[in-house]
Amino acid sequence: MIYLDNNATTVIRPEVLEVMSHCWREHFANPASQHRAGRRAQRALEDARESIAQHLGANASTYSPDRVIFTSGGTEANNLALFGLNARAPGKVIVSSIEHPSILGAATELARCGVDVQTIRTRNDGVVDSAHLGELLEQSPTRLVSVMMVNNETGVLQPIEKLAQLCAAANVPLHTDAVQAVGKINVRFSDLNVAAMTVTPHKFHGPVGIGALLVRSDVAVMPILYGGSQQLSSRPGTEPVALVAGMRCALELATQELDSHSRVMAVLRDRFEVIVSQELKDAVFIGRNAQRAPHTTCVAFPGVDRQAALMALDLAGIACSTGSACASGSSEPSPALLAMGCTHEIVRSALRFSVSVLTKEAEVIQAAQRVVQTIAKLRR
Amino acid sequence: MIYLDNNATTVIRPEVLEVMSHCWREHFANPASQHRAGRRAQRALEDARESIAQHLGANASTYSPDRVIFTSGGTEANNLALFGLNARAPGKVIVSSIEHPSILGAATELARCGVDVQTIRTRNDGVVDSAHLGELLEQSPTRLVSVMMVNNETGVLQPIEKLAQLCAAANVPLHTDAVQAVGKINVRFSDLNVAAMTVTPHKFHGPVGIGALLVRSDVAVMPILYGGSQQLSSRPGTEPVALVAGMRCALELATQELDSHSRVMAVLRDRFEVIVSQELKDAVFIGRNAQRAPHTTCVAFPGVDRQAALMALDLAGIACSTGSACASGSSEPSPALLAMGCTHEIVRSALRFSVSVLTKEAEVIQAAQRVVQTIAKLRR
Repeated sequence: MIYLDNNATTVIRPEVLEVMSHCWREHFANPASQHRAGRRAQRALEDARESIAQHLGANASTYSPDRVIFTSGGTEANNLALFGLNARAPGKVIVSSIEHPSILGAATELARCGVDVQTIRTRNDGVVDSAHLGELLEQSPTRLVSVMMVNNETGVLQPIEKLAQLCAAANVPLHTDAVQAVGKINVRFSDLNVAAMTVTPHKFHGPVGIGALLVRSDVAVMPILYGGSQQLSSRPGTEPVALVAGMRCALELATQELDSHSRVMAVLRDRFEVIVSQELKDAVFIGRNAQRAPHTTCVAFPGVDRQAALMALDLAGIACSTGSACASGSSEPSPALLAMGCTHEIVRSALRFSVSVLTKEAEVIQAAQRVVQTIAKLRR
Repeated sequence: MIYLDNNATTVIRPEVLEVMSHCWREHFANPASQHRAGRRAQRALEDARESIAQHLGANASTYSPDRVIFTSGGTEANNLALFGLNARAPGKVIVSSIEHPSILGAATELARCGVDVQTIRTRNDGVVDSAHLGELLEQSPTRLVSVMMVNNETGVLQPIEKLAQLCAAANVPLHTDAVQAVGKINVRFSDLNVAAMTVTPHKFHGPVGIGALLVRSDVAVMPILYGGSQQLSSRPGTEPVALVAGMRCALELATQELDSHSRVMAVLRDRFEVIVSQELKDAVFIGRNAQRAPHTTCVAFPGVDRQAALMALDLAGIACSTGSACASGSSEPSPALLAMGCTHEIVRSALRFSVSVLTKEAEVIQAAQRVVQTIAKLRR
């Protein structure tokens, strides 16, 4: 099988597995325990937290460092952001129309609870319309804005710096879901000028079951889970030290030589697109006119049904997807592609292929050829 | 170090580590992905779910099976129970006065949101007063009752069957936090007549970072996290297949030969208590007059400060605790002991020692002797 579904999840690196195995054994104690074994686990946890903060470019100043709140993954971190950031302030919540289901789902729940939720339009090229955010911010007081850094379906980079400027001018905190950005492009939290950022390591060869919300030092966050005093009560529950250590290891490996990793992925992605476009002239590469992260291509094959194509490719040994795995229980059309104004025909026939730095060039060439053959066969 | 803090967490079994390592490698795909690798991961997940349900005595009938909702651990499962069970019904929420911080914390948040929260009294022997629950149920409509199965500080067994009868008569769902019960005493979900039950494997030599809420087939639960359609939308987020497989393995090992495990732990606990009581005549074993799970002893040494004793024991190579690890960030007196009506002197001097089935007899004897010496030294 050639695995081109790295946006859903990635294979875990052997180095990460080794670090976790060591940690499960050596730091099994509860980091909240006061005895020596507990304090050792606590130290391992805090060392990992510091390394993670540093590798994400957070401000580590002693007096008011940015915080890393560990969660069970991206979904919980996104929920914590939407429900917890600036939570007691009045005003509306603004999200983009192409967010991950864990942002849109939380926003829907906020709306159900009576919060005014507004959606930023997305341009045809897949970029969130920053001018529209400006208008929305002017209309009425805003509690929070959330826009992802890299779209999970198209790979299109979102103008976080520009959006952060608008939010700063309006004195509104901006959260960004950077789940598809970290390990793919250079992400330095303190340069972004955002209030909070979501990360999860299973997108860059780390473990599933762990994630984090980075929170800028001056920003308050209300918890969404209640209980013990772990993580300064912002997220109670026994901290999974081994998973955190695995996250740290994966992040260190993902950010070392990131520039070269990015280039490798872009070359793989471009290679794939060239082969497919040469053979299938009517293939539509969605978001190709915008700046994209290097690992994702979303391509529509007019006349082909995406579910049928996914299954045929699966039989041909290619693992890809029809959009967010988190949404794939449903057979609804992709909300992100709809928001971009793609036609029904494009939405109906779009598949996502995503590489990682561990994908081999030969795999990509092989996969592109099989895609061409499979689509041709389906059209016959 | 002799580790007698197994109620905080337990060392992971090598068999569990091996299962997880295998699973991280073999079933790395996202179980929500539609391709073969995803479907294989999904199968591994559902196999584990079924085994866990079966080993906890859940009803596995094809038409309306009890559900196992995976969470990030006991804290999240307890929060899901308090916020999610029977959530849209009116009426008060009743908890016992000796619950874990993750129940009491969630109850405090409910109260802050305007819900009437009532607390069941606890008798001097550490058993929740079922007559008082009867009175509370009669006073006004009730949405939910939550009482733990085994107290984490004293090991005292709670009368869940009796409480379940009262709740059934009043047509009110009962949730039980069985975190300190599973792997220590026989727990069969379908015999308990409760609506839902919390479990986490790191209390029985499984991984931290995973837990579950078992929900009876006829009971509805509203989610507390929003996003993808995983776990029938009751708990979105990419399922950590390896952690679930680790939970399954730990549970299988913990429930095989459970009777003999229980006896082993009771013998160890009793041995410890006999040595300590012979040498320290004024030691007070809290909850010893009630039925207890076999793994926990809570003992007060009048005249000794529990924090000083914990630190002195740590230096003497004994890891124990002053109560719930989840509460140990604080130096507040134990709410459970206060609820039992223990005197200030008892509360001030109480330590918890907890064994597991992997604790050795020689360790327990050694530990009891060092406790005796250390307490004697502190009193000099």
